Amino acid sequence: MVKSEMLMPNDTNMFNNLMGGKLMYWMDIAAGIAAQKHSGELAVTAAVDNISFNQPIELSSVVTLKAQVTRAFKTSMEVYIEVTAEDIPKKTKFVSNSAFFTFVAVDKSGRPLPVPQAIPETDREKELYDGALRRRQLRLIFGGRLKPNDAIELKSIFDQKI
Amino acid sequence: MVKSEMLMPNDTNMFNNLMGGKLMYWMDIAAGIAAQKHSGELAVTAAVDNISFNQPIELSSVVTLKAQVTRAFKTSMEVYIEVTAEDIPKKTKFVSNSAFFTFVAVDKSGRPLPVPQAIPETDREKELYDGALRRRQLRLIFGGRLKPNDAIELKSIFDQKI
Amino acid sequence: MVKSEMLMPNDTNMFNNLMGGKLMYWMDIAAGIAAQKHSGELAVTAAVDNISFNQPIELSSVVTLKAQVTRAFKTSMEVYIEVTAEDIPKKTKFVSNSAFFTFVAVDKSGRPLPVPQAIPETDREKELYDGALRRRQLRLIFGGRLKPNDAIELKSIFDQKI
Amino acid sequence: MVKSEMLMPNDTNMFNNLMGGKLMYWMDIAAGIAAQKHSGELAVTAAVDNISFNQPIELSSVVTLKAQVTRAFKTSMEVYIEVTAEDIPKKTKFVSNSAFFTFVAVDKSGRPLPVPQAIPETDREKELYDGALRRRQLRLIFGGRLKPNDAIELKSIFDQKI
Amino acid sequence: MVKSEMLMPNDTNMFNNLMGGKLMYWMDIAAGIAAQKHSGELAVTAAVDNISFNQPIELSSVVTLKAQVTRAFKTSMEVYIEVTAEDIPKKTKFVSNSAFFTFVAVDKSGRPLPVPQAIPETDREKELYDGALRRRQLRLIFGGRLKPNDAIELKSIFDQKI
Amino acid sequence: MVKSEMLMPNDTNMFNNLMGGKLMYWMDIAAGIAAQKHSGELAVTAAVDNISFNQPIELSSVVTLKAQVTRAFKTSMEVYIEVTAEDIPKKTKFVSNSAFFTFVAVDKSGRPLPVPQAIPETDREKELYDGALRRRQLRLIFGGRLKPNDAIELKSIFDQKI
Repeated sequence: MVKSEMLMPNDTNMFNNLMGGKLMYWMDIAAGIAAQKHSGELAVTAAVDNISFNQPIELSSVVTLKAQVTRAFKTSMEVYIEVTAEDIPKKTKFVSNSAFFTFVAVDKSGRPLPVPQAIPETDREKELYDGALRRRQLRLIFGGRLKPNDAIELKSIFDQKI
Repeated sequence: MVKSEMLMPNDTNMFNNLMGGKLMYWMDIAAGIAAQKHSGELAVTAAVDNISFNQPIELSSVVTLKAQVTRAFKTSMEVYIEVTAEDIPKKTKFVSNSAFFTFVAVDKSGRPLPVPQAIPETDREKELYDGALRRRQLRLIFGGRLKPNDAIELKSIFDQKI
Repeated sequence: MVKSEMLMPNDTNMFNNLMGGKLMYWMDIAAGIAAQKHSGELAVTAAVDNISFNQPIELSSVVTLKAQVTRAFKTSMEVYIEVTAEDIPKKTKFVSNSAFFTFVAVDKSGRPLPVPQAIPETDREKELYDGALRRRQLRLIFGGRLKPNDAIELKSIFDQKI
Repeated sequence: MVKSEMLMPNDTNMFNNLMGGKLMYWMDIAAGIAAQKHSGELAVTAAVDNISFNQPIELSSVVTLKAQVTRAFKTSMEVYIEVTAEDIPKKTKFVSNSAFFTFVAVDKSGRPLPVPQAIPETDREKELYDGALRRRQLRLIFGGRLKPNDAIELKSIFDQKI
Repeated sequence: MVKSEMLMPNDTNMFNNLMGGKLMYWMDIAAGIAAQKHSGELAVTAAVDNISFNQPIELSSVVTLKAQVTRAFKTSMEVYIEVTAEDIPKKTKFVSNSAFFTFVAVDKSGRPLPVPQAIPETDREKELYDGALRRRQLRLIFGGRLKPNDAIELKSIFDQKI
Repeated sequence: MVKSEMLMPNDTNMFNNLMGGKLMYWMDIAAGIAAQKHSGELAVTAAVDNISFNQPIELSSVVTLKAQVTRAFKTSMEVYIEVTAEDIPKKTKFVSNSAFFTFVAVDKSGRPLPVPQAIPETDREKELYDGALRRRQLRLIFGGRLKPNDAIELKSIFDQKI
């Protein structure tokens, strides 16, 4: 799932750079579409993980958001989003952000629906699939629904790359 | 170049369907990105050809715009855009619109810049490339800059499919 | 029917000029109002004809859209829109764009409704009324619903002014 | 100066009626255009007088704002705006609001510029022209820049129609 | 009730200052929230009193709107709003505007509902409470629903501070 | 720092509930204001931590965002935001979300500036201040700039409440 945007004054902050809040707004739409496509159902935002903003993106840049479901749980899906920013006349291009969103598939009245499994194929997809469990434990800890000591997979974070 | 959107109340008319003006707004951004990518320069809208709206697109649908340059002239490019609408829970999907936009590559002060040729590869691309000349003549006639009788290629419109 | 706008940063592209997509958004509203007024019913966008953008319109300019129904068919109406741009402190004013939109009158559930005839009065209105038939044939050809050879009136395009 | 709008979900409050704040936003643009046209210069909002909202305006209604300068002072202009709301399929139409805005003509750096006089012609225009002085005194009192007892013309408010 | 905003290009006019219409849009939301909080019901805009705009507010400024109900009538409430603008890096801060809005409490179908009294506590609140009656008479006069000579409390305007 | 909003159709998704992306847009503004106020400088978004969305917020609800700096590092600040949603006529009110944003103070050309320390006073502030170090290590790990084994304070996450 791909969502491209071109930065207009409308999207910028006082520095004429993309406003962080506007990018998150676009990410939410991109992730929601990926979640709809995977589940075949409407889907609503359940969680957003850590996002970092390292480099400003200037007015007139082209921003490309790519989103895909990494792993499905019972009624929820983790979606990975990667944002690339390009200043075409200056010939610069860089991955500006990446993020994990969690969406829940719902019916017309908002009740959660079961979602099909995501089957990873490439190495990168497998890596994202494996990490999904650790990130889920981290979300549950943040949400106060899991005690850190019970987060078996997450503990491995201190021995390996996330 | 792909731009996906999910229909929010914000995008709809009084029937809760996608508003025509909003779709044209998105098309203009999608075509502008395709033109930037082809030319390597900023680009501004020069013309929009006939667009038809045959079927309403409902709230919560996913709309996918695909845009690519079909042919380059001296400083201008014709961009073909195809819009697909999907109601994912209802499992319906249809090509809702297609359109040709013309963009001109410009420098920072808005002066036209030469653009590289577009080389068609697939049969579909060749068909679009060939038609571009006739559509250009039609635009020049509409713009009052070409007499119908001088539109050699366009005359063939009455003998073949556009 | 008249719709005036004053260009704010919100409406501009990266050159601080009116963005093409925003103008089309305004045109769609203006044409829709003219269609409602003529038919006495709600109306939805069915088609947009060729629009050209010849000259940039700068931030703080006043843009005036005038829209009127030129001719009614069974359930559809052709609307002519003329856009004038004025930079008042610089005392410049020019017709920046003109376009033909087609709208269909519909009831609350979106079903087409018959519309009253448009009776042209001035010479300009008669000219627009007469041309409407040729433009309609062109739209039907573009929409794949008429063979070029059957477009009797349109063929005359090659002998006279559109 | 005329500005027409058609109510989209975008413009409405939780009752699907035009949101008061959105109407004031449109009024500000309409009055600003009238002030630019009268003065031949850019103009900024200086004051808004009493506006009342008596009747809700429903989704899909057509709203028409008419604005004209009633009287010019040294560098400021009073602008009268009348708003008409029409539900075309229901064949209802009513004057929904009227308001007086004050604008100041300014140069590119925001410095006030002298404006030409407004010459009232019709009876209605003369009435608005005469009232402008009283309304100006009221504004100065509200702004703490005039003592009520010095508002000679305003005192007459208690003997005649505003 | 407090509503803070930070000025983005989106909110500005052609001078890169806050657009008057946008500020009124925010005021309307702020006042509506204060009215909901006081009445415990939804509330719609009924009137706006004189607002003056004395000083431009620049891009990147922080704008703080404070709104509170000053006095309740049968089904309506007067809301006082004070707007402060801060340019934080420049260390400037000033009260840029103040205004009185009137809101009516309504049920889901828009029918007016009775609202509880507002009990002023501080001296400032008592002053606002007392003035509310005079301002209400002024609104009724402007609305053509009270003859100036019957506005007993308002007449005192010429002897004392509003 | 407080930012209140009232949910209009404009802010909602296809379920007439607050769209996640719109809330993050507001959070970004709220956090940016808190960061400006603390540092006395402009500030840009550097990171967003885990946010969860547990309960839908319905059209017409009042949303209140409270943001404050919890701890300052050299040129960056952690901002804690708490979002409360209220359906006033239904008399329901709940903390809907909380989040940590990181902002960097910058000068007019975007260069980082040193920020003053944040001195926690209440118990809650001290708790947030202490946790800031662990959350910062987590962000550095996510950003690939710290090895998990070097995150001394973070390791304690598995023994105590975050």
